[in-house]
Amino acid sequence: MIFSSRLIEDAVAEFSKLPGIGKKTALRMVLHLLRADDTNVDGFTQAISQMKHGVTFCEQCHNVADTKICAICVNTSRDRSQICIVENIRDVIAIETTQQFNGLYHVLGGILSPLDGIGPDQLNVYSLQQRVKNNAEIKEIIMALSPTLEGDTTVYFISKQLSGLPVKITAIARGISFGGELEYADEMTLARSIAKRLPIDNYVNVSGI
Amino acid sequence: MIFSSRLIEDAVAEFSKLPGIGKKTALRMVLHLLRADDTNVDGFTQAISQMKHGVTFCEQCHNVADTKICAICVNTSRDRSQICIVENIRDVIAIETTQQFNGLYHVLGGILSPLDGIGPDQLNVYSLQQRVKNNAEIKEIIMALSPTLEGDTTVYFISKQLSGLPVKITAIARGISFGGELEYADEMTLARSIAKRLPIDNYVNVSGI
Repeated sequence: MIFSSRLIEDAVAEFSKLPGIGKKTALRMVLHLLRADDTNVDGFTQAISQMKHGVTFCEQCHNVADTKICAICVNTSRDRSQICIVENIRDVIAIETTQQFNGLYHVLGGILSPLDGIGPDQLNVYSLQQRVKNNAEIKEIIMALSPTLEGDTTVYFISKQLSGLPVKITAIARGISFGGELEYADEMTLARSIAKRLPIDNYVNVSGI
Repeated sequence: MIFSSRLIEDAVAEFSKLPGIGKKTALRMVLHLLRADDTNVDGFTQAISQMKHGVTFCEQCHNVADTKICAICVNTSRDRSQICIVENIRDVIAIETTQQFNGLYHVLGGILSPLDGIGPDQLNVYSLQQRVKNNAEIKEIIMALSPTLEGDTTVYFISKQLSGLPVKITAIARGISFGGELEYADEMTLARSIAKRLPIDNYVNVSGI
């Protein structure tokens, strides 16, 4: 693409660096901002700037936070006996959005993957061990990791780390997705969902929808 | 979506205002910026801010410009005898990218559309008339507007405005797209491309690809 304005060219180049954004989409966004009110565009750049310079990571659970301890950890109405272990902050947002979990989190910052050079030292694993040791109120550790080989390895590693500590370790249920069709489910999932079948009482929709 | 950080929530909300960006894509971009270097993110916000506050419109052709007169209009190596009439700056970028046109432009800023309340007063039509009157070097006006009813109406209106002035008025060729298949071409396009058939000599690829 050839632009007659250097300023537009630079803005398009910056937008193109974002994931999944090509030159055409970037141009569309830049022209959108060019037409928008000055205050809206300043609001846009300020929100990003403030986010980048203001966001920190919670000292307790490693979730993103606006203060030293995140809003979830300081919330006194949450159940401090349950800690949900997740890979990253996207997973925290996903679980929070379901509004089905009222405990606290622990964000690992990744998943064990020796091939990618990610070992326990790269993850927030030891801080979890310390956290469980130092907080007698923690009764249950819920593993909410991806159902992959790396996820299972991580679950196993963490459960070893926590062995001997007085906590129950559970993992999120696996099975056929809501709205999923049996014939398209993979063999492993289907096999497991039959093996781990539930009494019909448990089939009520938890979210009450 | 429920976020535990107000700063991230605000940044996601701002990104979601962009055209074609949903909450999930917005979050993906925000998390990308969160992981990026501070300097990269500052570069991103600065490029947008500078674009918004720095870009102006060329006093001659109404194209976007970094200065009072745009880079195309001040370029002395361009052919000042040809003026290409386009609807918007996206069209200027599209034509510039083909590298097949070396004349100047005139950006209308829209297209005549009485139903949407867009008449000649909302467009840069009268400034075109003045420009042609005041510049004896202009010999040809090339209409590069969309092949729609509104586009044709606008072409007709402008040609009426310029009647009596010593310029040749032409329009971009219409026909089957390069790589297009005959059977999928609409009837009007196909009919016209047969009626306006060209000698085989003109079939050589202009871009030399």
